[in-house]
Amino acid sequence: MAQLIISRKNDLVKQAAKLGQSASFRRQEGLFLAEGARLCADAADSGAVPARVFYTARAREKYAPYLERILARAQEVFEISEPVAELLSETRSSQGVFCLCRMEAERELSNLPLAHCLALERIQDPGNLGAALRTAEALGVSSVLLAGECCDLYSPKVLRASMGAVFRLPVFFCGALPQALAALHRRGFFSCAAVPDPAALPVTEADFSRPCLMAVGNEGNGLAEETAAACTLRVTIPMQGRAESLNAASSAAILMWEMMRPGRDCREG
Amino acid sequence: MAQLIISRKNDLVKQAAKLGQSASFRRQEGLFLAEGARLCADAADSGAVPARVFYTARAREKYAPYLERILARAQEVFEISEPVAELLSETRSSQGVFCLCRMEAERELSNLPLAHCLALERIQDPGNLGAALRTAEALGVSSVLLAGECCDLYSPKVLRASMGAVFRLPVFFCGALPQALAALHRRGFFSCAAVPDPAALPVTEADFSRPCLMAVGNEGNGLAEETAAACTLRVTIPMQGRAESLNAASSAAILMWEMMRPGRDCREG
Repeated sequence: MAQLIISRKNDLVKQAAKLGQSASFRRQEGLFLAEGARLCADAADSGAVPARVFYTARAREKYAPYLERILARAQEVFEISEPVAELLSETRSSQGVFCLCRMEAERELSNLPLAHCLALERIQDPGNLGAALRTAEALGVSSVLLAGECCDLYSPKVLRASMGAVFRLPVFFCGALPQALAALHRRGFFSCAAVPDPAALPVTEADFSRPCLMAVGNEGNGLAEETAAACTLRVTIPMQGRAESLNAASSAAILMWEMMRPGRDCREG
Repeated sequence: MAQLIISRKNDLVKQAAKLGQSASFRRQEGLFLAEGARLCADAADSGAVPARVFYTARAREKYAPYLERILARAQEVFEISEPVAELLSETRSSQGVFCLCRMEAERELSNLPLAHCLALERIQDPGNLGAALRTAEALGVSSVLLAGECCDLYSPKVLRASMGAVFRLPVFFCGALPQALAALHRRGFFSCAAVPDPAALPVTEADFSRPCLMAVGNEGNGLAEETAAACTLRVTIPMQGRAESLNAASSAAILMWEMMRPGRDCREG
């Protein structure tokens, strides 16, 4: 039987709300807050064991199949009132399902699978990061490497935009990408720097028969110069219009698509 | 010499703020508010004549080259105080440059250029709409058709995410897409419905040698069934992971890329 929480001032509620809001508090506690029936069920299924689950009476009826998957893994379960759900929610119309999950331990870079990989450098927009993770998973990219100061992987916006990819796709972290690249090149990776430079190699002409790390840079400034210089190749998406560049997530989508493209052994003339 | 406005209660300021906030007010007035030095300069360059320009003293110094382009086309010019700029701004750190622009008259669907085109049906997220427009322009897609109730093309978020593509790319509107498709097919278009269905034709195998309308649906529900049924072909992006679908803007990016792909005459086996 779930305990009922109706006060927004309850300590567990205050902690959960703060986990939704503060990246530094998430790091300190090693916990994050997931919201939404589907996302919480994805978290439970993928083994990001929900330490603590909160749901409203309305959600218990409406999202019963999801809650079953979630509660099978939960350690502590609380029913919450609608005002408490509103406090915890990031969205205007909350589904009333939340769980606290434990962050995974940071992966050793030496364990990065030797297969096509996306690297994002200093990505700032949570929507872009989440969408890129979602696309990476859908296209079968094996892992994602976050380099430098990116927005927080565990922010509610990233979790939502990723549609649960955060729970399934191995995400690695590194400080400066050039140093990481040196080690990855020794392991057999080659690397592509995505640059908005018409003189760079069109991505359609790159040879992806070896494991590739595709590096995409910050929304405003692209990749750091040192990073582009440290990559094996500079590749570009040929553009025809007056726009000078693409949105980071759209650009990453096209680059990953080319890297993973079915029938890619057919070489272009 | 620009008139100075320091009161947030000034009628022109109140009107501009309301234009930033309300789609129905924008439609009623036939005006919209653009924000940012680069975006306002793009608007001026593309002939969306800024009827009225507002800038702060700080912006006049910092963005002089942009303001020159803007003021060359402006009908009325006002210097505003920082608090007024904050009121008008959609972002946390405003550049302090705004202009009111006149909406273009709605284009006749019969004038849709007979060339590759993107159709978006009931797209709800301004970030997705703006990113799709930006990608369409960058890849050389000739026009975009917005079908059904989409988010407002002239909302500040769409304008910003489009990076000015709104001012350069011809955007058309229609009600129900199936009816519009009937007329477009008669004119020589064929159409592709993008569906997350592994049984549909992989987009890599579609023949884009004739003018194609690529139809992408709503974020949550995809294309309406009637729309998918009215299209010539159902195409899909082959997926390998556990994700069932892509973000609408990422999906549109990959589909447009394939439609416009350089060297596409090389047919896949």
